[in-house]
Amino acid sequence: MAVGLFEHDDLWPVEGLRLSATYAGIRRKPRDDVTLIEISENATVAASFTLNRFCAAPVQLAKLHLAKTTPRYLLINAGNANAGTGEQGMQAARQSCSALASAAKVSLENILPFSTGVIGEQLPVDKLTAVIPSLLSNLSADNWPQAAQAIMTTDTLPKAISRRIDINGKVVTITGITKGAGMICPNMATMLSYIATDAGIAQNLLNQLHREAIDESFNRITIDGDTSTNDAAVLIATNKTVELTEKHAQYTEFKNSLLEVYRFLAQAIIRDAEGANKFVAIKVHGGRDEKECLVVAYTVAHSPLVKTALYASDANWGRILAAVGRAPIDELDVNGVSISINDVVVLVDGARSTSYTEAQGAAAMQPAEITIVIDLSRGAATATVWTSDLSHDYVTINAEYRT
Amino acid sequence: MAVGLFEHDDLWPVEGLRLSATYAGIRRKPRDDVTLIEISENATVAASFTLNRFCAAPVQLAKLHLAKTTPRYLLINAGNANAGTGEQGMQAARQSCSALASAAKVSLENILPFSTGVIGEQLPVDKLTAVIPSLLSNLSADNWPQAAQAIMTTDTLPKAISRRIDINGKVVTITGITKGAGMICPNMATMLSYIATDAGIAQNLLNQLHREAIDESFNRITIDGDTSTNDAAVLIATNKTVELTEKHAQYTEFKNSLLEVYRFLAQAIIRDAEGANKFVAIKVHGGRDEKECLVVAYTVAHSPLVKTALYASDANWGRILAAVGRAPIDELDVNGVSISINDVVVLVDGARSTSYTEAQGAAAMQPAEITIVIDLSRGAATATVWTSDLSHDYVTINAEYRT
Repeated sequence: MAVGLFEHDDLWPVEGLRLSATYAGIRRKPRDDVTLIEISENATVAASFTLNRFCAAPVQLAKLHLAKTTPRYLLINAGNANAGTGEQGMQAARQSCSALASAAKVSLENILPFSTGVIGEQLPVDKLTAVIPSLLSNLSADNWPQAAQAIMTTDTLPKAISRRIDINGKVVTITGITKGAGMICPNMATMLSYIATDAGIAQNLLNQLHREAIDESFNRITIDGDTSTNDAAVLIATNKTVELTEKHAQYTEFKNSLLEVYRFLAQAIIRDAEGANKFVAIKVHGGRDEKECLVVAYTVAHSPLVKTALYASDANWGRILAAVGRAPIDELDVNGVSISINDVVVLVDGARSTSYTEAQGAAAMQPAEITIVIDLSRGAATATVWTSDLSHDYVTINAEYRT
Repeated sequence: MAVGLFEHDDLWPVEGLRLSATYAGIRRKPRDDVTLIEISENATVAASFTLNRFCAAPVQLAKLHLAKTTPRYLLINAGNANAGTGEQGMQAARQSCSALASAAKVSLENILPFSTGVIGEQLPVDKLTAVIPSLLSNLSADNWPQAAQAIMTTDTLPKAISRRIDINGKVVTITGITKGAGMICPNMATMLSYIATDAGIAQNLLNQLHREAIDESFNRITIDGDTSTNDAAVLIATNKTVELTEKHAQYTEFKNSLLEVYRFLAQAIIRDAEGANKFVAIKVHGGRDEKECLVVAYTVAHSPLVKTALYASDANWGRILAAVGRAPIDELDVNGVSISINDVVVLVDGARSTSYTEAQGAAAMQPAEITIVIDLSRGAATATVWTSDLSHDYVTINAEYRT
């Protein structure tokens, strides 16, 4: 059950970018499982990858290729993560890139591979290379919806969004897709995200935009605290419409739209988290710096006791308080801490609010969207993370899939 | 369902220590909820308390009193944690100590208060003080079983153990009780532990013994990663039998027996963890130091994905690998990591063992007691933590109690 997430509206094509998807037989269910994204020449591309030390073969290879040249093709398969597969996995990733490079007449380094699915099984590379001709011949700028579907694993809905801005009388498009619901089903892994614009953005600025946007979106969500072996996020600027620099009059407007796309997609992952019944924003104010706000927010967001209380719509503020109290930050004075749940003030300066009633708390916890505000009152910094609840369905999905 | 935990055998009395328990009406169920432990003069007492900044009123007061003099009475109530109760809670704790001090003709500082139960509700101090006369008149050295019962909250079984050693022809007894199953039911908190010996041990040595034993027992267990607001562990040496120093020929024998008592009680908490179907030891070998072994062990032990796989008896080693890969330690070379589950080798030097089969993994995961060994192969340090699985019952207990 996705919380407040619906099928996307129209997805606008991005000039200079074409996509295709097909079924190669990598996943058991006959549903498209390979996606190809073609990027025109003269584009710039920024990408970031999982920090997990056990990073998958495609992640290792994509990083190597990206360091050498600008990508022309992204080759993505679902159903197999090609992680924990050793040297054989690296060869499989290289082989699939090499087959695509020959067919598309580009160099090997122009290809970035991505995989998502079961960990620890070898990638059926023959199945993947067999569909390359059909992927190449079916490329179209209108295939964003097909791609959003084909990268899904256990997602219940495709996650996609488009934004358009008028810049100097020209329409600039930003379109993005993502998949993932944490490191979810047994042996399933991966959050993947592909966002493209037809604006032209120089490499350094693109890297900076991507990093800043990631920090306000995909780096602010948690379902289960488990970083996957395959996470990757890519930002592409095809340079077909308007060239943008930081000095451009509408740069901030563009940046805000881009950030909106990142945030929407990151939050969509939380809304579609396995077993999710609640979409929860945890806002920490009054910290000495952003880092300690994040530490407190993540300690609360990862607490199984807070998450089960959210599932039960139980205004169990004692658990939030206990999580704040154990967060590893320096010298917290609990007498300065205040907490509210959906605008109902629960704790003021470390003690239960005199006006607070259980009935208020129960009412505040009913909605599917919950905002918990924690004020540390010892500085001006602030940070927000988004998370979901811990439900029976979470346990079912993660415990019973292979049985 | 407690995993491999049974009602205790005989609990031997500890000379110089008397106990009593009764029902004061603090918890709804008519089951003993107040316990009194009397310590004879000339004893030494070591204690440690929760590191949670939101520590409960009784914890704050007990620390103050312990800093001033040696305790003569421990007053413990279940059903109400007296946490998040502000100045009123401090007054309630002080009032109950004061009533006991008058009745027992000792000073206020000779009393240590302990509370466990619901967070955020005021302690019904009148109910507590009303039973003090009957607690004092019913003190007996044989009441360890009653005390083990009376400190329970949602524990399914009392947790207690006795050990006897012959030292220089004299019988030295160590008896201990504990309660807790993590920070468990909605608004429930607290692990409490009381261990006593009739040996005589000087204060400095007792502190050291307590600290070392805690580090090998209660500081090595995790159910949900949530440190409670009320945790406390006490070690008492009544000095009625043999006086022990580090130079005593049987000191090591005594120390090992004491450590056995601590470990048994700490592990009993995990065996009785809410919803537990598995008792899991996570051993990390080959670390550069103990600290990084613990970081890796706790990262695996806290992973909801590892815990749900344990619940499902699913040899989902990809999740263990992913948890090791994201553990925050420096420069981990994944090509050195090996993993086994109940002696079945799964991963060797970062890649799936060539001899490993799914059938082996499935068989290894069947027992109720699971040992996961993770070898980092970059040093000589080692550490073990104990944890439980994440089951539907865990969600039920923690989500549905108040509904």
